[in-house]
Amino acid sequence: MKRIAIMGTGSVGQAYASKFITLGYEVMLGTRNVPEKRADTAKDVYGNPSFSEWSSVNKDVKLGTFQEVALFGEIILNATLGAKSIAALKMADVKNLNGKILIDVANPLDFSKGMPPSLLPELSNINSLGEEIQRTFPDVRVVKTLNTMWNGLMVNPAMLNGGDHTTFICGNSSEAKEYVKEILKSFGWPEKNILDLGDISSARGTEMYLPLWLRILGATGNGAFNIKIVSMK
Amino acid sequence: MKRIAIMGTGSVGQAYASKFITLGYEVMLGTRNVPEKRADTAKDVYGNPSFSEWSSVNKDVKLGTFQEVALFGEIILNATLGAKSIAALKMADVKNLNGKILIDVANPLDFSKGMPPSLLPELSNINSLGEEIQRTFPDVRVVKTLNTMWNGLMVNPAMLNGGDHTTFICGNSSEAKEYVKEILKSFGWPEKNILDLGDISSARGTEMYLPLWLRILGATGNGAFNIKIVSMK
Repeated sequence: MKRIAIMGTGSVGQAYASKFITLGYEVMLGTRNVPEKRADTAKDVYGNPSFSEWSSVNKDVKLGTFQEVALFGEIILNATLGAKSIAALKMADVKNLNGKILIDVANPLDFSKGMPPSLLPELSNINSLGEEIQRTFPDVRVVKTLNTMWNGLMVNPAMLNGGDHTTFICGNSSEAKEYVKEILKSFGWPEKNILDLGDISSARGTEMYLPLWLRILGATGNGAFNIKIVSMK
Repeated sequence: MKRIAIMGTGSVGQAYASKFITLGYEVMLGTRNVPEKRADTAKDVYGNPSFSEWSSVNKDVKLGTFQEVALFGEIILNATLGAKSIAALKMADVKNLNGKILIDVANPLDFSKGMPPSLLPELSNINSLGEEIQRTFPDVRVVKTLNTMWNGLMVNPAMLNGGDHTTFICGNSSEAKEYVKEILKSFGWPEKNILDLGDISSARGTEMYLPLWLRILGATGNGAFNIKIVSMK
């Protein structure tokens, strides 16, 4: 049984935890505070349950500190808030991360300059969160993927258009990208819809798409959408 | 016959000029220098003809300075380089622009920090070229559209997937957006594929998509693609 460490206990982390459990993984969910002190969250406006409610129906998911779960995981998934990802991964401790594949699904959203959020200037345009993680932890194999859509779709692509829409994958290690592609396929992503954009610097592109995603959400009021790349045959 | 002024004589301006001529408009193409001095351009790597070659088969398109063409046009289309758009429109003179609809199809690309280009920091994230034009010329009705794809597709959407892919429209004036939607429909855009994102601040989203567009181009080597929004029914 593969062991996966999911950093971040929000609705994104929860969606991945539930999915990986159904796929037969051992899952630990990492939180900043000692798990006993994790504040409960209210049911949110999107219909996500409170954390305690979610936990009560996901008893197989163990909770731990960032450090405990990083030590446990053979694969790491970053689902923390983009603005806090580097700090969270430092708390996990580089020695618990080195040599592992780190799947980064976070976005460097900046909520300090009004809504919809913009991107953190220091983590966009000529940088990205994906690159910053890779630069801070050079011995980790960072793979950026799935950050361009609502978390429900990330792990259940077939719920929309029979899975016929696009996700991207970026990273410096071809081997790590192949490994993560197999995970995406196990979620239901058809291989033809997983577009490899190249090295981790291409995370700039997928993260800078977020402002458009947020405007489409604002205009349509519906987060259950994705883009499909349509090309000349 | 409607008169349209197209600012910018590059391949984007040329594509619009040719299209508007076939649709029965009177077209003037605006250039920085006096037209007699416009430097010819070589046939480019994308297979676009040289400017003189293009002109020789598009004799109905008149050439003029930015100021001359803005005076002539009932509608203005900005197809200049994003970094130079504000300066070009100032050369056109505010009194020749006021009260008119200005269709902005440009992107604030920054070629100074390596390839693929990034976005100009002062015209992205918490600003955009569309907003900057609107702010600089408050009595112009700016409509941002079609800046998310290769110019061949902008004016001939039906060449790809029967026209079934998405374009966006942003602007403060609903009336101006309705007017521009009719132009888009005359290009072949199905109304259901023209997504109104709201006011001109939503141009941030469509312009910040460019880095993803450029990475997709880099990965696939093919600019003849677009995105289609796929939503839950």
